[in-house]
Amino acid sequence: MSKKMRLAAFVTAGPGRPGGWRYPGSVPGWLDASYYHNIARTLEDGRFDLAFFPDILSVPDRFGGSTDSQLRYGALGSLRVDPLPVMASMAAVTRHLGIAATVSTSYAQPFSVARTFASLDHLTAGRSAWNIVTSFQESEARNFNLDAQFDRSTRYERADEFLQVAAKLWDSWEDDALVLDEQAPLFADPDRVHRIDHQGQYFTVRGPLNVPRPPQGYPVLIQAGASSKGKDFAAHWSDVIFCSHASKESAQSFYTEIKERAATFGRDPDRIKILPSITPIVAPTAARAKELAAEIFELVPPLGGLSTLAYHLDVDLSTFPLDERLPEVEVPGVEGHYHEVREITERDGLTLRQLGKQYGGRTEGDFIGTAAEVADGLQEWFTDGAADGFTLQVPYQPGGFETFTRQVVPELQKRGLFRTEYEGVTLRENLGLDRPARGEWTTRAGGAA
Amino acid sequence: MSKKMRLAAFVTAGPGRPGGWRYPGSVPGWLDASYYHNIARTLEDGRFDLAFFPDILSVPDRFGGSTDSQLRYGALGSLRVDPLPVMASMAAVTRHLGIAATVSTSYAQPFSVARTFASLDHLTAGRSAWNIVTSFQESEARNFNLDAQFDRSTRYERADEFLQVAAKLWDSWEDDALVLDEQAPLFADPDRVHRIDHQGQYFTVRGPLNVPRPPQGYPVLIQAGASSKGKDFAAHWSDVIFCSHASKESAQSFYTEIKERAATFGRDPDRIKILPSITPIVAPTAARAKELAAEIFELVPPLGGLSTLAYHLDVDLSTFPLDERLPEVEVPGVEGHYHEVREITERDGLTLRQLGKQYGGRTEGDFIGTAAEVADGLQEWFTDGAADGFTLQVPYQPGGFETFTRQVVPELQKRGLFRTEYEGVTLRENLGLDRPARGEWTTRAGGAA
Ligand SMILES: Cc1cc2nc3c(=O)[nH]c(=O)nc-3n(C[C@H](O)[C@H](O)[C@H](O)COP(=O)(O)O)c2cc1C
Ligand SMILES: Cc1cc2nc3c(=O)[nH]c(=O)nc-3n(C[C@H](O)[C@H](O)[C@H](O)COP(=O)(O)O)c2cc1C
Repeated sequence: MSKKMRLAAFVTAGPGRPGGWRYPGSVPGWLDASYYHNIARTLEDGRFDLAFFPDILSVPDRFGGSTDSQLRYGALGSLRVDPLPVMASMAAVTRHLGIAATVSTSYAQPFSVARTFASLDHLTAGRSAWNIVTSFQESEARNFNLDAQFDRSTRYERADEFLQVAAKLWDSWEDDALVLDEQAPLFADPDRVHRIDHQGQYFTVRGPLNVPRPPQGYPVLIQAGASSKGKDFAAHWSDVIFCSHASKESAQSFYTEIKERAATFGRDPDRIKILPSITPIVAPTAARAKELAAEIFELVPPLGGLSTLAYHLDVDLSTFPLDERLPEVEVPGVEGHYHEVREITERDGLTLRQLGKQYGGRTEGDFIGTAAEVADGLQEWFTDGAADGFTLQVPYQPGGFETFTRQVVPELQKRGLFRTEYEGVTLRENLGLDRPARGEWTTRAGGAA
Repeated sequence: MSKKMRLAAFVTAGPGRPGGWRYPGSVPGWLDASYYHNIARTLEDGRFDLAFFPDILSVPDRFGGSTDSQLRYGALGSLRVDPLPVMASMAAVTRHLGIAATVSTSYAQPFSVARTFASLDHLTAGRSAWNIVTSFQESEARNFNLDAQFDRSTRYERADEFLQVAAKLWDSWEDDALVLDEQAPLFADPDRVHRIDHQGQYFTVRGPLNVPRPPQGYPVLIQAGASSKGKDFAAHWSDVIFCSHASKESAQSFYTEIKERAATFGRDPDRIKILPSITPIVAPTAARAKELAAEIFELVPPLGGLSTLAYHLDVDLSTFPLDERLPEVEVPGVEGHYHEVREITERDGLTLRQLGKQYGGRTEGDFIGTAAEVADGLQEWFTDGAADGFTLQVPYQPGGFETFTRQVVPELQKRGLFRTEYEGVTLRENLGLDRPARGEWTTRAGGAA
């Protein structure tokens, strides 16, 4: 049996790429449960490993100090439903699909987050995943009593301690602590439920959790840090790493680097799945795919893309001339996105306006074509050590998921690159990841050291 | 058309009354989504207004300074799944049932809570409710970086400001702000989405929310404060009040008092629904009902009940002699529960051990009998100005809900006391409550003044 690729779907609980909501195949159902139920069923039909929900805790106002461009153009941060109830709702209509929600360690408390994910992991019978972010928006800090966000190293230090507390809480009930002996009576064995008595720099938490150990031990942990600290954190804690690259070469070097870091920290590099994001455009002919890509691109308002880029980089791009190239800038936000943008700007000689449109409507070039051509591209990244699988982004929801599932998935299955049936019950089983034993956090801690 | 009573069901996302999990009709499915789906379908078949989930953020250790008695006896605070994902999951398999989750204002942030409920209100198409609690356990504070909880007046001051911020965030999108004009393009009208710029004593929040105004304006707000400050808060903010009384007389005086307070604060007393909790035991004959009550009572471990009472009162009851009456004590915890317990202790001359069993297994005397007898009792409370309806507690889950729905509900319907079909789409419509206009919070604020 050959190695299989993993597929995650990047689903936004709100409009995705600026312009995507304007496309005829897009359905503006982000506020309705049925919208997510349909997507969940499509992805489960396509045997996806998981649906992945990004998140943000504000309407960004980094572009010109105002939320106007986000709202007007329906950019990525304009409207965003809380992904946690979406996860629970999707799980109610599926049986195999894993579901990942993004939760920030900077604006939440570990007891609450550990409990919510333990609860979700039980309610989904082991299909939950947590995309751990540290957040990077001033506008988010301002919704949580702060004038400014913590600096990056504080954010990652806090995140590392946050994960330690969460893992200790997941471990606070031994796996067999719930006894349910009606005669004795013995509901849970007090000797197998433990306080954690955590006293750290950022958190003081006594425990135990009031939820038994999750079916997966810990929910699947996902991370997308792109700075050096971020990559360290990811290599320490992640089961799955999500990233974004403009070329196979940059994906390869990221892949190699992360797997090496993980090994250095005593983790099995095979137990960390790296899933770069892709945005394929698929059509019956290559010519039609190109045309479709152009139609979709046409709908992207440049200022919508720039507004999103401004918040991703945390740089007010409204202060630069629109018809010149973006000069090199200090990026307090997501370095990963900046690397990608620099690569595109230089390669294609884009002005800022063109960059805005490109960033809003970007579709990696390798993945535009017929289903077979797209499968070729994915196969190449997969076999050339650039990816363990992919995170599918679509130019418009939910149509993009349907097209990929009906056309590209069968092509991948035919080639033996992708499953035809789910292998296991839990998400970890499907991803080929071990269930962490109690105490595994001790080998994972230290991401900020 | 005569006035109809409202029915809520008190559902625990964990074992309920100590001993309940030992009853043969109990199913230990608190960790499974299907368990909640079954209950939700039963309640919707019974045309219940809503399912109500209590909550707690720790395993209490108030009894003898240890969590042992909670865990061993499966008491109320031993295991508790997060009610928010449960709400989302139940909503996915129902169309009319309202669903209420308890969230504390003492350990959460208003931006997160407002966003979660706005999201849930959209995903449920207007069926969400928030049971607002201020929390009253030292053990909860210790899971959230504190040595001791805030004192009661701080808790209510914070709760009042918390609600102001949440309501301002729900109001931050005007009702018609989401335009979705693909041509313009105009996704949302920036002139109809507003920052809140809240700067208060406990919270600084800029807004706007990243979720449009909830279908219900605000989710239905529920409260159960029993102290003087608690009753003020409830009369200011609540749409629904949940309480617990050992006799019709005490329920009547509470009912009158709350409605008067609400009027004093400029609110329409009719728009606040008071739903005392009841725990009926129903059987084909009165004699069998008594027997059944005794069987269920037999299963309650006295220390399980005392352990729960200790945490409700926040008093270490392990320090008092078990075979004497509980003396009068200072109660930092829930005064409402203390009033009830004093009433029972005096009336029935109970020792502490007996009180523990009684508290763990209590079933209000008026409501043990045949379906017709139970309906008589409910009718009397309803027509005598003790209640606008009831919150049904059951001695064991899910069987208790099925029995009540199959036997008592038809009896109430026959008498014209209860609906046979849902009247509206949203929970507010079914409860006969207006949708709050933007800015209604200004007339509700001040609960702590
Ligand atoms: C592909 C990708 C997706 C991301 N998705 C989110 C997200 O949904 N929410 C969020 O707050 N941060 C998101 N981030 C940001 C990272 O998780 C991280 O917080 C950010 O990169 C800052 O960390 P760094 O300093 O290590 O780059 C994403 C980053 C990348 C590269
Ligand atoms: C019937 C009833 C049910 C309650 N349910 C909860 C609950 O689920 N979680 C919680 O933290 N507090 C609960 N409470 C406590 C109250 O919401 C409130 O926090 C407590 O009564 C302290 O406020 P007080 O000082 O006004 O009594 C309940 C109280 C009553 C009377």
